Amino acid sequence: LANPSIGFIGVGNMGLPMATRLIDAGHDLIVFDLRPQALEPLVAKGAKAASSPAGVASQTEIVLASLPRPDIVRAVALGENGVAAGSRRRIFVDLSTTGPRTARDIAAELEARGVVALDAPVSGGVAGAVNGTLAVMASGPGVAFAEVRPLLEAIGKVFHVGTEPGLGQTMKLVNNLLSATAIAATSEAMVLGVKAGLDPAIMLDVINAGSGRNTASTDKFPRSVLPRTFKHGFSLSLMCKDLSLCLAEAEGLEVPMWVGNAVKQLWLQAQALGGPDQDFTEIVKMVEDWAGVTVGGDPGPESGD
Amino acid sequence: LANPSIGFIGVGNMGLPMATRLIDAGHDLIVFDLRPQALEPLVAKGAKAASSPAGVASQTEIVLASLPRPDIVRAVALGENGVAAGSRRRIFVDLSTTGPRTARDIAAELEARGVVALDAPVSGGVAGAVNGTLAVMASGPGVAFAEVRPLLEAIGKVFHVGTEPGLGQTMKLVNNLLSATAIAATSEAMVLGVKAGLDPAIMLDVINAGSGRNTASTDKFPRSVLPRTFKHGFSLSLMCKDLSLCLAEAEGLEVPMWVGNAVKQLWLQAQALGGPDQDFTEIVKMVEDWAGVTVGGDPGPESGD
Amino acid sequence: LANPSIGFIGVGNMGLPMATRLIDAGHDLIVFDLRPQALEPLVAKGAKAASSPAGVASQTEIVLASLPRPDIVRAVALGENGVAAGSRRRIFVDLSTTGPRTARDIAAELEARGVVALDAPVSGGVAGAVNGTLAVMASGPGVAFAEVRPLLEAIGKVFHVGTEPGLGQTMKLVNNLLSATAIAATSEAMVLGVKAGLDPAIMLDVINAGSGRNTASTDKFPRSVLPRTFKHGFSLSLMCKDLSLCLAEAEGLEVPMWVGNAVKQLWLQAQALGGPDQDFTEIVKMVEDWAGVTVGGDPGPESGD
Amino acid sequence: LANPSIGFIGVGNMGLPMATRLIDAGHDLIVFDLRPQALEPLVAKGAKAASSPAGVASQTEIVLASLPRPDIVRAVALGENGVAAGSRRRIFVDLSTTGPRTARDIAAELEARGVVALDAPVSGGVAGAVNGTLAVMASGPGVAFAEVRPLLEAIGKVFHVGTEPGLGQTMKLVNNLLSATAIAATSEAMVLGVKAGLDPAIMLDVINAGSGRNTASTDKFPRSVLPRTFKHGFSLSLMCKDLSLCLAEAEGLEVPMWVGNAVKQLWLQAQALGGPDQDFTEIVKMVEDWAGVTVGGDPGPESGD
Repeated sequence: LANPSIGFIGVGNMGLPMATRLIDAGHDLIVFDLRPQALEPLVAKGAKAASSPAGVASQTEIVLASLPRPDIVRAVALGENGVAAGSRRRIFVDLSTTGPRTARDIAAELEARGVVALDAPVSGGVAGAVNGTLAVMASGPGVAFAEVRPLLEAIGKVFHVGTEPGLGQTMKLVNNLLSATAIAATSEAMVLGVKAGLDPAIMLDVINAGSGRNTASTDKFPRSVLPRTFKHGFSLSLMCKDLSLCLAEAEGLEVPMWVGNAVKQLWLQAQALGGPDQDFTEIVKMVEDWAGVTVGGDPGPESGD
Repeated sequence: LANPSIGFIGVGNMGLPMATRLIDAGHDLIVFDLRPQALEPLVAKGAKAASSPAGVASQTEIVLASLPRPDIVRAVALGENGVAAGSRRRIFVDLSTTGPRTARDIAAELEARGVVALDAPVSGGVAGAVNGTLAVMASGPGVAFAEVRPLLEAIGKVFHVGTEPGLGQTMKLVNNLLSATAIAATSEAMVLGVKAGLDPAIMLDVINAGSGRNTASTDKFPRSVLPRTFKHGFSLSLMCKDLSLCLAEAEGLEVPMWVGNAVKQLWLQAQALGGPDQDFTEIVKMVEDWAGVTVGGDPGPESGD
Repeated sequence: LANPSIGFIGVGNMGLPMATRLIDAGHDLIVFDLRPQALEPLVAKGAKAASSPAGVASQTEIVLASLPRPDIVRAVALGENGVAAGSRRRIFVDLSTTGPRTARDIAAELEARGVVALDAPVSGGVAGAVNGTLAVMASGPGVAFAEVRPLLEAIGKVFHVGTEPGLGQTMKLVNNLLSATAIAATSEAMVLGVKAGLDPAIMLDVINAGSGRNTASTDKFPRSVLPRTFKHGFSLSLMCKDLSLCLAEAEGLEVPMWVGNAVKQLWLQAQALGGPDQDFTEIVKMVEDWAGVTVGGDPGPESGD
Repeated sequence: LANPSIGFIGVGNMGLPMATRLIDAGHDLIVFDLRPQALEPLVAKGAKAASSPAGVASQTEIVLASLPRPDIVRAVALGENGVAAGSRRRIFVDLSTTGPRTARDIAAELEARGVVALDAPVSGGVAGAVNGTLAVMASGPGVAFAEVRPLLEAIGKVFHVGTEPGLGQTMKLVNNLLSATAIAATSEAMVLGVKAGLDPAIMLDVINAGSGRNTASTDKFPRSVLPRTFKHGFSLSLMCKDLSLCLAEAEGLEVPMWVGNAVKQLWLQAQALGGPDQDFTEIVKMVEDWAGVTVGGDPGPESGD
């Protein structure tokens, strides 16, 4: 009984590889998903399927969840047949991105029902989930965190950013704001340079050798913008949602964020003009259209796009 | 006669170590500065002092300059007793940051007087100049660039960013815009996180492990903001000047830059409120004052500053 | 029976004078307020007090409400003992400012319970309510609007801005956005002129004779800013709420609003720096502090405030 | 000899009707323009043509000018055969819009050559010039202003905004900033309302009855936007130039102008996307395109433009 069973709810793009890594690390998993067939790869590896979140939480003391939206997290945690309705549940770890307000609200309601909540949103994408290199930003009581830390270390690099619920969410939003700022600012800067006559590949070489270097100049632009592939693996509309959550938090805390707001507006406008199905690297196309130049690609047919 | 003499004008904080490296690389230097005593360390190493830029340019075919302001570059290149008035000068390499318009204008006037101009602004600070690790962003005709490249390689990593005059300047402004954006956005993001209850040192750990990483989160904040030293070696007012030059270039090229403009306004406001003598890392103090929190330092007496 | 009784719920600063005007226009009123003593002036003029919103709505077919917050409107309309629980209620007219989303939601729920809802927010302040010169921006089905129009004309100038619920709210938010823009932009412009050396009273004369004229230059600045009284009768924090509602509507409709967002940020920052209890004309003080000048007042002791 | 001759230089769209009004008011005019045929209507009314600005300034003590660009004003005032080279000139009144820096520079150089300069830019368009209803914003020494005031009153309503040169220019830029803000903000607000489902004509009725009223809602939108005529008589690119001059003045005086800068960026972007030949009311088209709706016009074929 050295390794008690762990619950895992939600096995989508992110949840499936995270649950797989937990099994590979030697944990017995009780799993649930609204789409039972999604559980098959895990069952094939020895996981046991439950018929509801409450079913999971009646067989395990620790339940992890990876879900797409705040309202689904709320239903899974607190709804009829939710985790709180299980008989053994003691700790709930939410790996989803829901924003600090939702996390605080759910934690308070779970606490009132005797469950300790940790929010632990992750960063690093599907590749990070597969490879166990996610950044895991956990917040919640220290004792509970210490208990689940070994589980989280199976899926990535773990940071305990605070004991108050929601701080993990705030940490993730702040990180994504900086990521979104880098992409937006680098888009403007690259378009300016190209219109002035600079070569975009040389620009990246110089920027990455200097003080302008950021994760857009080292990753997004060389890998997805200059080759014009625009499949970097995160949707533009999800970035818009994270930015809206982040700036709402700033508004609530009365922190003036002039640059952050300009960044948010630029992303929202890219969503309005190009639609919600774009890859987040496609924001550069709006700036290119405005300026009448293209950053990278075959300069012949695509220029003036 | 394998190694002809090279001219070097302007031996200030940046010029002196660059000229020293050229001597150390085996070049004979003819030097000039308005303050003759500033030449002494170079003369002691074998350089020969001239009495005017024209004097330099009558003894050498290639003249480099490192000067503080556009109007001084203009006077040194084109004024009475300027480089163009010398009898042997053939190539003028300007290592100063003057903006693309000034560089283009001076290059055109020099060309009319038979001198090929290269602009080659540098990035990396005094430490980079001493250690020969500057980024050198050169633009101008390829033949002339090929001829001076070995000289430039004595002072840093050399990029030939274009054959048109002024592109080196544009490249430097674009890099500095991204550097300034990183500092401004990271200031807002860190202040938001701290006001929400996050620890600034942990925040930097998470950001630097994730997609938010930039040169402010890896360098300016851990080295100068969290320890509250604010001596990072570049002045806030020089950053304001670079941003004004950069956005003026964008306005001239009709490239809409919403994020870039918000960044510029934030820097200008920090200069207006805190004065021109601040270190550029001190921009965070304005955002801190607005929000009523402090990022780093002894959290006791300084918090709520 | 030519003049059936009318219900009126909420008799605060705005509701009391509006209800009074309805009585003065010859209508019999059934009234309710959470603070029964607030009803006394109306009862003294012949109104009949009910003990709940449902009590009002069991004695009249048309019920008007003037309430301070969206959640209170919701409780009054749909809660236990709310208007929908009355036996005779047929039409509900909400004179409050709640934003279009709340108005649409409440209208849909009322419709499901057999009540036609009109939203009819008003503009013009307490003086307008007393004098019957409010602008009333009503939206909702045309037949119901035609029936209540004579009532609304007792309190102001009536506009039927649409048949869909919520459009009255949108109309009010758009008007207030332009009002807030005028105050913010005129603050910046006056501070710039004064710092350049212009006299603020002369500036207003010129602006009001020219194309810069707006309701800040004709009203707020001469009446409350230059005399430094700052008692114009609307709170800065209410303007912030209206701007947040307006920009949220724009975000939902995917309308990029660069100027509107800058205006919102400036107002939010004034609230963050000066507190929520300021008069809305006090936003100019933040801009004055930034620039180190004062617009109007005794130029001696106050300048450099 | 009660009415001495007056000089007038530059008889374009604005200059010709202003000069005509001076003749009609009983003044003898000595006139000059680079295109001599442009002087014919004035000569036909009794004016006397000179062959250069110096020629004008050798026959009159007071010389007025109405010219299109700062560099032309400089040449006319200070160049070879300029006003300063005339033998009798004593007072120079510049009716052009040049910005405060140019006005100050020219005034200082004229003073050094014994000429008192007044800057007196005008507002109100060609119609105002024809009808004598311009706003004239004069600055300069009081004695000289008192002497020329009767002349200026022949062309419009005269304001003496200060004794320092350039303040008339600043006053005009501030007024135009507020005009530009009204047009930009009203464009965003009207597009938001129309996309929400409001009728634009009703919106203007409500706004003009309320606190949102400005010169765009009372003039530009009803006269040129809703009827889709877009011939309001001022070019979008001239507004961009005025905004650039205004914000440069703010930058020089260290006045943070967040709203003003957003306004400037929106106008510059409209110029970049729609070209320099647009009427200034056409800025609304960019906002319409972004949102996918049209404000006014035949709603059938034009909607979704």
